[in-house]
Amino acid sequence: MTTESSDLYPVTRLAAAREATAAAGLDALLLTPGPDLRYVTGYEALPLERLTCLVLPARGEAFLMVPRLELPAAERSPAARLGVEFVPWDETDDPYAVVGRRLGAVRKVGLADRMWAMQSLRLRDAIPGAEQVLAGTVLRGLRMRKSPAEVAALREAGAAIDAVHAQVPGFLRAGRTEREIGRDIAEAIIAAGHATVDFVIVGSGPNGASPHHELSDRVVQEREPIVVDIGGQMPGGYCSDSTRVYAIGEPPAGFLKYYEVLRRAQQAACDAVRPGVPCEAVDAAARDVIAAEGYGDYFIHRTGHGIGLETHEEPYIVAGNAEPLAPGFAFSVEPGIYLPGAHGARIEDILVCTDEGGERVNHRPRELVVV
Amino acid sequence: MTTESSDLYPVTRLAAAREATAAAGLDALLLTPGPDLRYVTGYEALPLERLTCLVLPARGEAFLMVPRLELPAAERSPAARLGVEFVPWDETDDPYAVVGRRLGAVRKVGLADRMWAMQSLRLRDAIPGAEQVLAGTVLRGLRMRKSPAEVAALREAGAAIDAVHAQVPGFLRAGRTEREIGRDIAEAIIAAGHATVDFVIVGSGPNGASPHHELSDRVVQEREPIVVDIGGQMPGGYCSDSTRVYAIGEPPAGFLKYYEVLRRAQQAACDAVRPGVPCEAVDAAARDVIAAEGYGDYFIHRTGHGIGLETHEEPYIVAGNAEPLAPGFAFSVEPGIYLPGAHGARIEDILVCTDEGGERVNHRPRELVVV
Repeated sequence: MTTESSDLYPVTRLAAAREATAAAGLDALLLTPGPDLRYVTGYEALPLERLTCLVLPARGEAFLMVPRLELPAAERSPAARLGVEFVPWDETDDPYAVVGRRLGAVRKVGLADRMWAMQSLRLRDAIPGAEQVLAGTVLRGLRMRKSPAEVAALREAGAAIDAVHAQVPGFLRAGRTEREIGRDIAEAIIAAGHATVDFVIVGSGPNGASPHHELSDRVVQEREPIVVDIGGQMPGGYCSDSTRVYAIGEPPAGFLKYYEVLRRAQQAACDAVRPGVPCEAVDAAARDVIAAEGYGDYFIHRTGHGIGLETHEEPYIVAGNAEPLAPGFAFSVEPGIYLPGAHGARIEDILVCTDEGGERVNHRPRELVVV
Repeated sequence: MTTESSDLYPVTRLAAAREATAAAGLDALLLTPGPDLRYVTGYEALPLERLTCLVLPARGEAFLMVPRLELPAAERSPAARLGVEFVPWDETDDPYAVVGRRLGAVRKVGLADRMWAMQSLRLRDAIPGAEQVLAGTVLRGLRMRKSPAEVAALREAGAAIDAVHAQVPGFLRAGRTEREIGRDIAEAIIAAGHATVDFVIVGSGPNGASPHHELSDRVVQEREPIVVDIGGQMPGGYCSDSTRVYAIGEPPAGFLKYYEVLRRAQQAACDAVRPGVPCEAVDAAARDVIAAEGYGDYFIHRTGHGIGLETHEEPYIVAGNAEPLAPGFAFSVEPGIYLPGAHGARIEDILVCTDEGGERVNHRPRELVVV
């Protein structure tokens, strides 16, 4: 069953964003194409040099500046249900001046977190005297707390990437390169129902010790661990992201020892998830297990990141983030242990915080998969 | 033959960017992942919420802020040849504060045109008192004038997308949907050597009248024009973009009449290309032919856009742009005629301005292709 766009992008969201804007003391949000605009309107606009911008005043009527070329796409999008005026502009118009004129005198505006400088600096000049802050400061409270429809969309994304991991053993053969294996995985990500492939990491042997290694022409060997971290975006906009570790034949005992530590650490962090627990405590739950076994220096990144319309969004599961978890928060739990020059491992699931604890949306076995 | 990255991204470019920065009266460029950073350093960095930023002062040593996780990728990239200090930062550091501290007191900084607000506003706060302008104002003069290696890369990209257009007739059958045809085209774009598929427009019948229509579930009919506008990015970073019009069986006479006008208009604009000619004159050359035949109101967009590391970059071939063409400028020439509700057409080639005129990098026949 596929989640309907009307559930994922309810028309009530515009009013919620407007209320949050007023509550934060901002006069307006200015949302260019990207996850903030999509969250508020459902419109998956192309990121272009031509300005598309939802202007959402705390008081007064919202409007969508849209290049005339993009008007048919905007009219077909869920944004058309919002009752927001579309203001098309032509190739020789100055759309920034139009925004400034229609908005009038304002003191503080929130910019989409991913707005390009090309646009933010022109809006700064077109709306003189207005302080620019991040729209994220207003929208994060809404975006972090996923609705039941968004949680359902994350479950669908989780099932899709699980289906890809289920096929990975069939792609692994000694003598193939990471890139060849990665191509098979990319095709499987699309075949499993994703709209786009966002990343394919196949880190074999020493490459597994570099957490953001992607693909190389290295030939995969027997008896070495292979870190496979993959994800994509579903047609509705929600993202998948899951990591498992594979090996072609039993890897060395030194690896198996710390892999078991990692597995316990990932479980401990998942067990720590419940409403009210600070994000940093989930990080600490994984880190404490790893440090107690002497691998603390080899866990070189945060434990996780929020996920939704972006693969990486708030909340970040990192030391120093005291934000308490709340029902609907969705994020990765992905501790890792990396031995430079030798090998590494990471186990990653996406979790949603429920009233009682954490619900995983990824269900593939977390034991090392020996092919 | 493939263009080497050392030709595409010569180490001398850093010095050229620094000189242009000083000449423009800026104290530094701040380049986050995207085409500006790749142009200056060759580093194809991932766009992430973690800050990666080349800090290039007009006077003083450049440095690259890089998340420690991305350090291995940065060290493998062409940026490693530049002799620029890499400054890795850890998960709980504040990289913005580090940039502010190391840069010291500055009055004017140029931001990568595609820098996210998430980063530009934090840099604004971390470098108080510095006016932010677009790095594009400094880099455009360099980026617009393609080097021989860049022109060679655009020719390679042109040949790759021509090879895809050569296969399109085989994908077209009445009864298939635009989306099915688009999937075949996307696969062919990758098979032809592109690293990514950037866009696939298959606009059949009335959908051809919406220039930025992408793909739909509409079933393609006989005797109607089908606008196919496709492009991708080659592994070296340079982009392809070409449009041709197809039909399954002869389309109506009314269409054929304006298609011939369009073909003449596109040829006239290509013939107008030579050094010293303003961009807007190339636009006018196409527009005049179309207007003289009474279709002026149906040509609803500019004639073209620059192309290089971005599909859309300067110079824009549009009324009001008096920028004179110079050898090495590369851009699309793509007039269109669109009859709302009925059908439309667009013919697009990428041209490079040479010492004498314009060199096309696309060579597929421009006549309507009747399958």
